[in-house]
Amino acid sequence: MQLQSLQDVFTHELQDLYDAENQLLQALPKMAQAASNQELREAFEHHLDETRDHVQRLEEIVGQLGISGSGETCEAMRGLIKEGEKTIAIQGDPTAKDAALIAAAQRVEHYEIAAYGTARTLAGELDHNEAQDLLDQTLDEEANADKLLTKIATGGMLKTGVNEQAAR
Amino acid sequence: MQLQSLQDVFTHELQDLYDAENQLLQALPKMAQAASNQELREAFEHHLDETRDHVQRLEEIVGQLGISGSGETCEAMRGLIKEGEKTIAIQGDPTAKDAALIAAAQRVEHYEIAAYGTARTLAGELDHNEAQDLLDQTLDEEANADKLLTKIATGGMLKTGVNEQAAR
Repeated sequence: MQLQSLQDVFTHELQDLYDAENQLLQALPKMAQAASNQELREAFEHHLDETRDHVQRLEEIVGQLGISGSGETCEAMRGLIKEGEKTIAIQGDPTAKDAALIAAAQRVEHYEIAAYGTARTLAGELDHNEAQDLLDQTLDEEANADKLLTKIATGGMLKTGVNEQAAR
Repeated sequence: MQLQSLQDVFTHELQDLYDAENQLLQALPKMAQAASNQELREAFEHHLDETRDHVQRLEEIVGQLGISGSGETCEAMRGLIKEGEKTIAIQGDPTAKDAALIAAAQRVEHYEIAAYGTARTLAGELDHNEAQDLLDQTLDEEANADKLLTKIATGGMLKTGVNEQAAR
């Protein structure tokens, strides 16, 4: 591969994300199935729906730009999912396991926040305004998914989080 | 492996981070060497020094808790570094390559922000106050490293960022 311009970097970022999101589509149902806490299971299922939208948005962007979405293997997402699968396979207390699933999922969310943050910035620099809007929408959803996971872990004013339940 | 308690989850998180930071110690000098922009090279070198402190803090924490720091392989960091190495090997325009190096490094920073965020929260839930303080210090440094990379990419009032240079 060659990177001759910022457009090449942007293309590379989009292809990396497209592979990452498609890997995640396969992994999220297993994360949902492994969760004991109902709110956590629903959060994974909801994020699976959002991830389908994220794939569609990336397809829309590469379609607009006339480039291919495929061509990259996202090695980082492969590693993140391998970690998630190790957590799914762990035996033990269901609430402790939920806390570990949340930890694995927040690493995935932060990976995506970093990647969409870069892609959105590059779209702006290259004046791909429609692409920038679509990437911003996804970035917001990834950030919200991360916040929801923090809330499920740490609880709030009216209820006990997964962490506190596991610490009892 | 078994997770019977929140303490087990915390131990698992610390061991994952310990392996991740040690992998990063090997990778950062190569990232610095591959950077063309001087500010970027210095940022990688500075973060290498900080990463040595992060490893020491983790050793201090596991020492205090009387647990082993080793025992985990951080698969996610392995994938993140594999991506970084692919970027290092890319040929092309030096400024476009710098933009891609920044993108790879920000994914690493976000991975660590997620991992230290979890570890810090777990330390708090488990009343490991000294550990929480040490993890907070590292979390701050990871967040600052991420912000500095954004600044180098996007520039500021008085200078042109790597992205804009690559777009010329």
